[in-house]
Amino acid sequence: MKQKPTMADVALYAGVSPSTAARVLHGNGYVSDANRKSVLKAASELEYHPNIQARSLRYSRSFLIGVVLSSAVRNPFFALISHAIRLQANAAGLSVLNFNHNYDHATEVDGLRRLLDHGVEAVILCHSFEIANLAPIQKAGIPIIEIERAFLSETHKILIDPQPGLAAALRDLVERGHRRIDFLGGSAARGSRGGSSSHSSADEERAEAFLRAAAAVGLDAADLHVTTGQYDEDSGTALEGLIRGRQILTRTDRPTAIVAGSDVLAAGVLQAAYELGLHVPRDLSVIGYDDSLGLFLTPALSSVRQPYDEIATLAIEMAMAGTKSPSLVRTIGTSYAIRSSVGAARSGA
Amino acid sequence: MKQKPTMADVALYAGVSPSTAARVLHGNGYVSDANRKSVLKAASELEYHPNIQARSLRYSRSFLIGVVLSSAVRNPFFALISHAIRLQANAAGLSVLNFNHNYDHATEVDGLRRLLDHGVEAVILCHSFEIANLAPIQKAGIPIIEIERAFLSETHKILIDPQPGLAAALRDLVERGHRRIDFLGGSAARGSRGGSSSHSSADEERAEAFLRAAAAVGLDAADLHVTTGQYDEDSGTALEGLIRGRQILTRTDRPTAIVAGSDVLAAGVLQAAYELGLHVPRDLSVIGYDDSLGLFLTPALSSVRQPYDEIATLAIEMAMAGTKSPSLVRTIGTSYAIRSSVGAARSGA
Repeated sequence: MKQKPTMADVALYAGVSPSTAARVLHGNGYVSDANRKSVLKAASELEYHPNIQARSLRYSRSFLIGVVLSSAVRNPFFALISHAIRLQANAAGLSVLNFNHNYDHATEVDGLRRLLDHGVEAVILCHSFEIANLAPIQKAGIPIIEIERAFLSETHKILIDPQPGLAAALRDLVERGHRRIDFLGGSAARGSRGGSSSHSSADEERAEAFLRAAAAVGLDAADLHVTTGQYDEDSGTALEGLIRGRQILTRTDRPTAIVAGSDVLAAGVLQAAYELGLHVPRDLSVIGYDDSLGLFLTPALSSVRQPYDEIATLAIEMAMAGTKSPSLVRTIGTSYAIRSSVGAARSGA
Repeated sequence: MKQKPTMADVALYAGVSPSTAARVLHGNGYVSDANRKSVLKAASELEYHPNIQARSLRYSRSFLIGVVLSSAVRNPFFALISHAIRLQANAAGLSVLNFNHNYDHATEVDGLRRLLDHGVEAVILCHSFEIANLAPIQKAGIPIIEIERAFLSETHKILIDPQPGLAAALRDLVERGHRRIDFLGGSAARGSRGGSSSHSSADEERAEAFLRAAAAVGLDAADLHVTTGQYDEDSGTALEGLIRGRQILTRTDRPTAIVAGSDVLAAGVLQAAYELGLHVPRDLSVIGYDDSLGLFLTPALSSVRQPYDEIATLAIEMAMAGTKSPSLVRTIGTSYAIRSSVGAARSGA
């Protein structure tokens, strides 16, 4: 590796004092336009790259943000949310250290230690395996931003309101004549373990919001079935939706529509319908949640849409606010993306 | 943020000399077992975290690896490969700075500059938008590992051989009576721009491997159609497969099977078949490539499988070998994952 140019080299090349070069390159203090241009030109021609490691020591900043995810493999929701966060972080001059716990205690402990080692300025918690593992981050005084969950005290929180999206989804179904509707709720793979029992999980919240939204559009509780629960983490992905979709679709009081707690579950429901020879949407309407897979599935899936960009923007704002602010709590609403998996209820159904 | 314990605090607490503590915590030099245990116990109880920023300056190491991707949104292949790389990097004590160029020149230039600023020890190139943007990384003497591409000279390269997987896929089709088979090749979204013209793109390689594999199982070239080309980057995702699937499936010499150049394209083909009232696999067999979406789709998709874990392991090995080694080039083979999207060719078809 060739010798890197220093800030002193840049000052020399630009014909300005080292302190002038420093003011330009650190972006603080007054510098004349002419000098600023000379320094930036010199920096560009010399291919000067500020040494973030040295800057980190001087300013006690690492310019790194940690993002905790479960696994990119099980649920594309996590790929989409971390992508949105990375874009916002980069726009704010920050880089992102992603880390996946893969539903393993030691992996999570090790990954969080690594985030500490790199001196991340904040940790955004999209999904934690065991919330107690966050203790070292909290002890170190590093701000934590919880997304869609509220397990820890004294953290910033971005809560997602499932109601607007589910209300729009149910209005759509009711207008098409559906009355018998199932909600197929989330799996253990979506909720953190060991959370405070005073807060319900995102899955429970979605199920409750479904029932409230159904009542609001005049559906009879007797026509609604809600299935949620803790399932085998290893079955993963769409298999869970397939198995549970088979159970629902072979009931004598088969629903005409299923709202799933995630697009991944909905993908399994589509597979179950296919196996049983049911045409979607002619025989069954299906709506997902997260809007993470909709464009890949057959038919293209209607889904309750997560506000990915708003979540990411807010998360980075909270990360920058750090621990100087008291705990910030903000709630963002969902919406409803209509595609091809919803149709009229069959007459007589 | 409370005062962090230093290495000197650990030495004091453990009752050993600072140099003994340093040898244990840096993992170099001889230390007695008793002293090693005392130091590790003290480090644990004091919650000592080595300051990677300070270590970085001392050892000229950042313990960071850069990974360049296109967009997590368009193709889950990238989420899977970056996930596998992150796991291998973490196991090697390295953290990963992902970055997505999103098919935008300025974003790629800016992202690569950020990787330089953070002093990444190597850059793994899963997908570059404009290969010329890599020049600053090369000038800085940072090792580059190209995956499935060979656009740059003096880089390490991991080449993927499409042949074994495609050969197995075609054997499967032929054994089930298929003769008229289409290959629907990749899009601009998969190939870097501005690559050396002496190397074909991954998409072209797959199409050529398809034809070789088809010849090897005795298929008549007259029964095969190959469609590849540069398509609108903005149409993205499965839409391209849908549009091109419609064209193929409404031809008078409609094939009985389609092999797609990616699972995302195959997802669009499944949508086209559904629109046209064709049942998969009764009326049409479909095989994908990458094995990135297979378990989500209906029916579950047979696919040529990328060797994700082998690629990741090798990429980290090459990153650690750095520029001390001459350019390393290794080739890994694909395999074939059988699921439900392949069936017998219709008699008379």
